[in-house]
Amino acid sequence: MTKKQSRPNILVVNDDGITAPGIKNLIEVAQELGNVVVVAPDGPQSGMGHAITIGKPLRFDQVDLYPGVEMYKCSGTPVDCVKLAVNKIFKGKKPDLCVSGVNHGLNNSINVIYSGTMSAAVEGAIEGIPSIGFSLDDFSQQADFSHCKKYIKTISMEVLKHGLPPATLLNVNFPKGDNLKGIKICRQANAKWAEEFDERKDPYERPYYWLTGVFQNNDKGEDTDVWALEHGFVSVVPVQFDLTAHHAIPVLNSWTFDV
Amino acid sequence: MTKKQSRPNILVVNDDGITAPGIKNLIEVAQELGNVVVVAPDGPQSGMGHAITIGKPLRFDQVDLYPGVEMYKCSGTPVDCVKLAVNKIFKGKKPDLCVSGVNHGLNNSINVIYSGTMSAAVEGAIEGIPSIGFSLDDFSQQADFSHCKKYIKTISMEVLKHGLPPATLLNVNFPKGDNLKGIKICRQANAKWAEEFDERKDPYERPYYWLTGVFQNNDKGEDTDVWALEHGFVSVVPVQFDLTAHHAIPVLNSWTFDV
Repeated sequence: MTKKQSRPNILVVNDDGITAPGIKNLIEVAQELGNVVVVAPDGPQSGMGHAITIGKPLRFDQVDLYPGVEMYKCSGTPVDCVKLAVNKIFKGKKPDLCVSGVNHGLNNSINVIYSGTMSAAVEGAIEGIPSIGFSLDDFSQQADFSHCKKYIKTISMEVLKHGLPPATLLNVNFPKGDNLKGIKICRQANAKWAEEFDERKDPYERPYYWLTGVFQNNDKGEDTDVWALEHGFVSVVPVQFDLTAHHAIPVLNSWTFDV
Repeated sequence: MTKKQSRPNILVVNDDGITAPGIKNLIEVAQELGNVVVVAPDGPQSGMGHAITIGKPLRFDQVDLYPGVEMYKCSGTPVDCVKLAVNKIFKGKKPDLCVSGVNHGLNNSINVIYSGTMSAAVEGAIEGIPSIGFSLDDFSQQADFSHCKKYIKTISMEVLKHGLPPATLLNVNFPKGDNLKGIKICRQANAKWAEEFDERKDPYERPYYWLTGVFQNNDKGEDTDVWALEHGFVSVVPVQFDLTAHHAIPVLNSWTFDV
């Protein structure tokens, strides 16, 4: 029998905001595994990347959304939420696990860098907390997360059991639908967004622009997250926040810098 | 004699905003090297990381700040600026170089991930443009950038000459003062911010929080950017945006995921 005091402490965050269905599903799984604390943005913060709030102060309030769950909403970014959780709630006693999501929309490939969901998990990892970001290939508010839950549970349990290699975290993405073929450990596909700006005129005849784009996969590899998702697998990519391109150091050392 | 049409096209961006002294200094160097187009935020965007603007539209207007320089201000993030420049100004014909900064404040070590300056350069690299972010160890609006200029010029010239290894960019940081010892190619130091939140009460007795923190270097290596800067060198770190922790893939493949 698991003793109450041995249950892990789990921080749950997201970027779609504290009322999003995705985080509700993640909270439900986390409650099966441990003691849950939720700190999430008070509104949508998609595409915020690793932004932090330094030009204005933050608001931070406890809320009572789901029975028995300690929850806080924050006026800042997903990364702010993690920083506030570590500093103001856990007060230096790190949680045993940080889970972020479940995001409404994929965060595979290059999306890892734009995603508030993934940046929250990256911040958890920077803080030394085993961290996982979860995302589903469905932007809808009516998205069905039920097929993700057993995978979220088993992946979280493995991370709680083994820990993660130093300075790494996991980026987990789910295909839509319930015919999942299993889990595939992947690398980030070499892909990008080809931007398009939708130009419109405001009522005063001044132009404004909506950022849109088309996802372009330039990677034929069968070991990528894009490939795995297209073939019905749950993709798991280990992510690091040391951005050093170590292979480029000898190249740069061969250059002549005349000053 | 350099023919006019052979001069490289250079995109200049930043995160401190289009009126910051740092970008003025960067523009001056870029004008010595090529044809300059500036696209910068209309106000401060420090700490915006790789945020993009998807929940609201963008404004984008030509301005006339410095004689003979094509300049645009943008209501969005540093990354938005690069996307707008590539799509609306260069219209698919990529610039030959993207330079970001000069940032008022260091972006060494883990700061690369929070920095709007560096994220703009990362976005340039994602777009396939040779890209460099420059930052100075001085937050002041009166910061003296004069000792940086010859280094900015030589590093930019080397990048224009050689290109950069695929999917990499450069993170260049300058110490304060004019006794620079030269350039050192480095890796990103293993360091982090220990957050502290400054809690205050508003006039209605409600709490609010300012994010502050202390930089903690946990890396004794003499091949890091932190070491180089502390010892009077200009640090140059090659940066990549493939965040895959390749070394962790075999570890994860050894786990059992029971679903």
